Order: sequence, then C-alpha cells, then structure tokens
Amino acid sequence: MVTELPHSRQFQVRNHDHRTGPKPQFYEKYFVQTLDHFNYNSMGNGTYEQRYLITDEHWKVGYGPIFFYTGNEGDIWEFALNSGFIMELAVQQRALVIFAEHRYYGKSLPFGQDSFNIPEIGLLTVEQALADYAVMITELKKQLGASACPVIVFGGSYGGMLSVYMRLRYSNIVAGALAASAPILSTAGMGESKQFFQDVTMDFEKIAPLCTSVIREGFQRLQELAQAKDYGRIQSAFSLCKIPTSQKDIHQLNGFLRNAFTLMAMLDYPYSTHFMGNMPANPVEVACNTMLSGSDLLHALKDTAGIVYNSTGALTCFDLYSLYVECADPTGCGLGFNSLAWDYQACTEIEMCFESNNVSDMFPAMPFTERNREQYCSKRWGVIPRSGWLKTQFWGDDLSAASNIIFSNGDLDPWANGGVRKTLSSSLIAINIPEGAHHLDLREANDADPASVIKARQMESDTIAQWIKMERQRYR
Amino acid sequence: MVTELPHSRQFQVRNHDHRTGPKPQFYEKYFVQTLDHFNYNSMGNGTYEQRYLITDEHWKVGYGPIFFYTGNEGDIWEFALNSGFIMELAVQQRALVIFAEHRYYGKSLPFGQDSFNIPEIGLLTVEQALADYAVMITELKKQLGASACPVIVFGGSYGGMLSVYMRLRYSNIVAGALAASAPILSTAGMGESKQFFQDVTMDFEKIAPLCTSVIREGFQRLQELAQAKDYGRIQSAFSLCKIPTSQKDIHQLNGFLRNAFTLMAMLDYPYSTHFMGNMPANPVEVACNTMLSGSDLLHALKDTAGIVYNSTGALTCFDLYSLYVECADPTGCGLGFNSLAWDYQACTEIEMCFESNNVSDMFPAMPFTERNREQYCSKRWGVIPRSGWLKTQFWGDDLSAASNIIFSNGDLDPWANGGVRKTLSSSLIAINIPEGAHHLDLREANDADPASVIKARQMESDTIAQWIKMERQRYR
Repeated sequence: MVTELPHSRQFQVRNHDHRTGPKPQFYEKYFVQTLDHFNYNSMGNGTYEQRYLITDEHWKVGYGPIFFYTGNEGDIWEFALNSGFIMELAVQQRALVIFAEHRYYGKSLPFGQDSFNIPEIGLLTVEQALADYAVMITELKKQLGASACPVIVFGGSYGGMLSVYMRLRYSNIVAGALAASAPILSTAGMGESKQFFQDVTMDFEKIAPLCTSVIREGFQRLQELAQAKDYGRIQSAFSLCKIPTSQKDIHQLNGFLRNAFTLMAMLDYPYSTHFMGNMPANPVEVACNTMLSGSDLLHALKDTAGIVYNSTGALTCFDLYSLYVECADPTGCGLGFNSLAWDYQACTEIEMCFESNNVSDMFPAMPFTERNREQYCSKRWGVIPRSGWLKTQFWGDDLSAASNIIFSNGDLDPWANGGVRKTLSSSLIAINIPEGAHHLDLREANDADPASVIKARQMESDTIAQWIKMERQRYR
Repeated sequence: MVTELPHSRQFQVRNHDHRTGPKPQFYEKYFVQTLDHFNYNSMGNGTYEQRYLITDEHWKVGYGPIFFYTGNEGDIWEFALNSGFIMELAVQQRALVIFAEHRYYGKSLPFGQDSFNIPEIGLLTVEQALADYAVMITELKKQLGASACPVIVFGGSYGGMLSVYMRLRYSNIVAGALAASAPILSTAGMGESKQFFQDVTMDFEKIAPLCTSVIREGFQRLQELAQAKDYGRIQSAFSLCKIPTSQKDIHQLNGFLRNAFTLMAMLDYPYSTHFMGNMPANPVEVACNTMLSGSDLLHALKDTAGIVYNSTGALTCFDLYSLYVECADPTGCGLGFNSLAWDYQACTEIEMCFESNNVSDMFPAMPFTERNREQYCSKRWGVIPRSGWLKTQFWGDDLSAASNIIFSNGDLDPWANGGVRKTLSSSLIAINIPEGAHHLDLREANDADPASVIKARQMESDTIAQWIKMERQRYR
C-alpha cells in the first residue's frame, strides 16, 4: 500500500527542521512484547523488542488522554514525523502521545534478519499487531500511572484500518478512533477491481482532460515500441540503466511508471512533502504540466516518473527493478524490508485485487485476478490467501454495533472510495475532504491547507474532545 | 471446569427417551475448518473436520433465525441433549438450530490422537475456537440460503463465555447472546481465590448448618488418620481399590472428595439428570441426608462421594486416579480427552486460581497459587500462563461498548459469582435465578422447575424475540 522511495528515510528522520508546527520530542523506546499471542507452544513462545516513540511533553500527568498511533507498514518515525495534527491535538488536550511500530517493520523485527524467512514470517498478521497494541497500551498505562486516562487511537491508511479494528476489538481499551484514509472495504474484498486506478486517473483528468489523453498516448507509444521489440529506443527514451530484453521487462517498466502516477495522486498535497520520498507541491498538476510541455511523449513520461523517482536529480539512469518492486499489492509494496512484509500481508489477510484495464483508467491493462494472486502467493510464500477472512474478522461494512469512529477520506485519494464515505450513526462519522489527498488531515497545519481540511480537522478535534469527556464520565 | 463422569456419555447419547420436551432430531455433520486462523505458515496450514449437529425441523427456511450453540469443553451431544430450552425457543421462533463442537473436544480433534502432543495442542485457544464458529456460521449461512437470518448464540458455562465473546468480537455475525452461568470475570483473573469453594459450601450450609459441620468433621477425621499414617483404615473407610501410601495419595483423595461436593452443588437440579454423569434430584439435599444419617463419619463421606462416582452401584471400590484427575483447574478437568484439553486451556488463557482454605469453606486447605499454576503448566505443557490476557482480550468487566447479551446465573451455582450479576444497560441484562444451579435455564422445561427459572426463561425468550425483530429491521 505504501511505496517508500530510496534515500528518503534517512533524510526524513535527521532533518525535520522544515516543520513549522510543534516539534515532537519523542523518546525512542522498546517494549518487550509477546511474540505469538495466539499459540503458547509455537516457536513464538518468547518475546521480541517492539519499538515505540513516546512524548509526555504536553501531558497532564495521570489525567490527560493518551493518543496512540497504530503504526502501519513502515518505519514508525516516518509516521510520527508526518502526523503533526496529532501533536497539535495533544497540546490542546494535554495528551501523552505514543507512536507504536508495527511488528515486522522498521526496527521491530521479531527474528532480526530472519524475520522474512518461512516460517518466521508467519507471525505477521493483523491480529498479532492488534494484540501487540492492546498489550502495550494496557502495560504502559500501568507503568505510567495512566489507568484513568482515555485512549484515542489514530492511524492513516492501513494504520487507519488498524485504528478501526482496535476500537472494534478492544473497546475496553480504546475509547475512539480517528481512521484517516482507511480502505477497510476494498481491502476486505468488498471493492471493485477497477476502482483504484480509475480514481488515480480521475485526479489527472481533473487537472485537464488533455493530461490523461497524453498519458494514455505515451503508454500506447511505449506499447508500440515494445511490440516492435525496439528495446534500444525504449532504453534511451526512459534512461534505463539496463536495456530491456523481454516482455517481462516491459511489464516491469509499465508497473514502474504506473506507480509514479499512483504516488503523485496519493500524495497530491498542496505543499512539498517528504513523506514516502520527496514530492513537490501539487504533484499531479506538476505531472500534467510536465506531460503537456514535453515535445516527445516518451521523454515526457520519463520526466514525469522522474518527479517521483529522481526528485534530487541524482540518478543518471533508472534501475527498474530496484526502484519499483512488483508484489501482491498492485498499488506497490515499497522497498527494502517493507516490501517483503507488506507483500506477505497482501498475500494473506489484506485483499488487494486492483487492476488497470486501459478502459476506465489511463494505464496499460495489467490484470491481477484472485487467481493471479493465489499463484503468486503460493509460490512466493507458500500461502493461499483466504478470501473473505478480513470481512468475517473485522466486520466489513456491517458496523452497526460499533461506535466512536471517524472515517476521514480525501476526494483526491485513490484509496478513499475503498473506505467508509457515509456517516452511519451519530458515533460512526464519515468526514470527506474534497481537496484532500491521502490522510492530509493527519498532517500538521500548513498555510497552503485548503479550507476543507481545516474544517475536517476542527470536526475531528471536536469529536475527539467529546469522546474524551464521555470516557472520563465513565471512569468516575 | 466440567467433570465428566465415567460411563455417562454413551448412556446419554443412546438413551434420551427420558426427555419429555421436543426431541431434537439432529443431523451429525462435519465442517471442513481452517486449522490455524492466525498463522498462514504454521503446521496448521490445512484443515480439520469439525463436528456439528444441525436440525431444520422447526426452521422457516430462509427466514427463521439461527440458534447457534457455541460448544464448550466436551462432546457436543452432551450439550445438545441437555439444552432443551433452545429447542423450545426454536419451535416458537421457527429457528434453525446448530450445536457446534469445540476444537480438541469430542470428535473434533484436529490431529486425531496426536492432538494432545506438543506442539499440536498449541492450536487450542479461545481465539481459534471463536474464529471456527465465525467461519462456520458465515459459510453455513451461504450454503443454506440463510444470509438474512439473524443469528443468536447460546452457551452454558465456558460455552456461555464463548457466546459473550462471539457477540463482542463478531457483532457483524451475531445479533445477541444468551450466556448462561458464564464466569467471565473469575476466569479472567478478576475473582477471589476463595469464592468458588465458599459458594459450594454455602449450598450445603443452606440445607442445614449441621451438614457443613459434619462434612468439615469428616475431612478432619481423614486428616487425623493421614497424619497417623493409618492408611489401612483410610482404604477400608473409603473403599479404595489401592491402599494410599503417601501424602500425595491423601491429597488425591481430598481432591476426589471435594470434587464430589462441587459437582453436587453445580448440578443441584430439582430432578434427576444425566448431564456429566447421573445425579439424583436435589443432590445437595441427598448429600446432606447421607452425611447426617451415617453413624460413621468416614463412611458417610464415602457414601456421599458415591452419589457422584457410583450412582449405579456398579463400582466395588474407588480407583482415585481414574475417577478424578487433578489438573490446572481446581474445580476439575473431567476425564479422558476432555481432561487433557481443558487442562491445557486452564494452563494458558483461562485463569482458575480457586483454592479451598478450610476457613471460608468446609474443605481441607488445598492452596493453588498463581505460582503453583505456573510451575505445573510449565512442567506439563511447556507453557507459562499469561495473567491478564483474557481480561485484555475479552474486556473483563469493561463492557460499556457491548450490547445484546443476557448473563444468566443461578444462586445455587458456585460459578455464579464469577460472572456478571448486575444489569449493566438496557441491552446487557443480568438475570439471577435464586433456585437455579449451573445453567438450569438452558435445560428443557420440567414439572419440578422452580418458579424463578420459569420466569427467567420467559425473560430470555422475550429479549431474544426482541433482538431478532431488531436484527430483521436492520437487514431490511
């Protein structure tokens, strides 16, 4: 779901002086966590060190609420440094803030470098991750004398799904959840396979219908060259480090390009960002300008991909297989350890059968059926995905017994229509942000913020304040 | 939690002509079930055959609700044949009735005779059992064209705990739960260690204070003989097949005796029953009469134990170690396969640190600390119990976000005070049955029923009818 870009993380963590809001002064700590919550006799009958970030800078000790970020598929610093809204809320509410890292990501590798072997990878499941958070919250509340402090969970994207699930499964521990851009329906097999890339395409269409036409045409030109096996021309047009030699390489190039457009749509923020790589302000507009200004379509496509893959201009050529990893998630698996762990999750519980079809979207048709997924996952990880499991386990759209969840989504975000878009009850609230990209609302305030996200954050803030108040009454 | 008695099950299943209510004509079937719901790369990456009983005799096809019994620690026929109230309700509501067998019990052994080896036993957890039921309900609803049929779960004792958990964890699947005699608090480490045997004692005290005095005295006499190492006298007094030779044997004898009183208290029904063995009507009264009529205290104790262990009079002597199994559950683990599986559950998730102390109860002091439990479980199963897990995982008494659960308890039942005794909200209803023993309300109507259980069943029936009505509106 997340594609992390090369060279970005180090930059991120070390240089966050560009931030304008309250700077989080996190302590980085490790929690001794149960390896296997669901089998007392497995290899997991032990513990591992789970990383978390914590700051009590604004906390009214023993009274202020706990804001707990349910970490998703990546280094936890990445999320901590790109969720400034939580810190802004923490100041208002005098909250203790914790960002917990998801097992098998970042530095929370249960078996070190062996974590991605079979069978060690088997302890990577949504349920284990949720149990980690439940145990961590329970234990830290004790240690910190915070037993009466209401806990609100926050998360973006898959992290938002985890926040929803925490509220559903651990209502005893979690008083409410802000789930930003959480595609709980599409990942549970309740979406349409064409939805995602159609919505990516729509973002570009909104800038200018000509933009999508030109992108389509660029892909078409590439296809013609590939059919003619004019691989030399393709290499030079796209500045590829290695000459493509097969249909497989062309497929990889198409995936690499499609992924660039996907990322620009997801991260179409109104100011430049350094989340999952460097992105200019309004990247979709920048991309369309690039596409429309080039004289050569293929070069324009390459330059557009370069916005994502070569923001610093340091690369002299594109190494397709290192810059983009194809996996069980057609929207991208990221790079490095992330890619392995997320690939496994997309092969087991998280259903991601999105495909482009060149009809409802501007990309080459790249089918990815349930059967493709099964074959890949069986070969790669020795697993057969269990369709319908996430829906059974985490309720799908049957949320009538749930409460205290905000589902926020931005209309620019291709993930949005895989989530809950309509308010379901007085305590299951959908907030839609017309000018918002992927969990923009979780980011700190910025002068370039559209009015819709400012309004959304205000509603979120008010609702969370109300949950905290209600929870306090319950403790009395 | 359950102690099954010898020779009882076969009798039960084959001869249920003594029943007076509607006879369930169950089909016995097997469901191909996922072995390991929480690890895609474990040895459990396969399936096993889970037994269930089903009857559509009263079902209004595709419309009537589904009544689903969440099987507990035993052969599923045992529960199906002793829960006649569910059938009576099914007639009223035109319901489909399913009794599902819990993995690792009865014929639902995932690894056959190897199921109780390490590590095969590791897939025996509450979470796996709940996931089994969730998957089974979801799949059977599809197969039977019952997608719009509301599902109500029922369970007694540990089965009642599972019913509560099903409603908490799978509100998308289960509209409501009748949890009869479900000690959700004491088993989650939220009880008092003295509670259980104190309440057993109270049942005898209620018949006559002299009764408990005499029982106390009998145990005291036994203790004196043991201290004098007069093992021959002990053997003859208690008709033991083997002469005791150690303090360990005396400990076993004490456990064997205490267990008889426990069972009579739990199963203190106003008519004779064949659930977990044969029991006369009002066994606590019968026991007190026996205790008070004998001239010799030790013989009286033996004869009282015989009510439980030798109801048919077929035994000429008591083989202590085959009639009673000491395990991680001080209230008894049953016999045969049951004992192994339940012992494992009491060593892992289910906390059962009850002990008798000879002060607040009439039994010899038989300490069973958290540390005793750890040592035993570590040695027997290679596991360390995780205190607090059940409370974290299944909410303990923090049920404010839950709904549609009836907690019924009988005042005669020593398990009752480990459960929810007070109504928590308009949809979390406690029903207390002053004259009721262990889930008497789940049994079919009987002429000897006290008024309190008749009233309780009526309230249960009304509440369930209302849940079904509400759920139907939701589907519309």
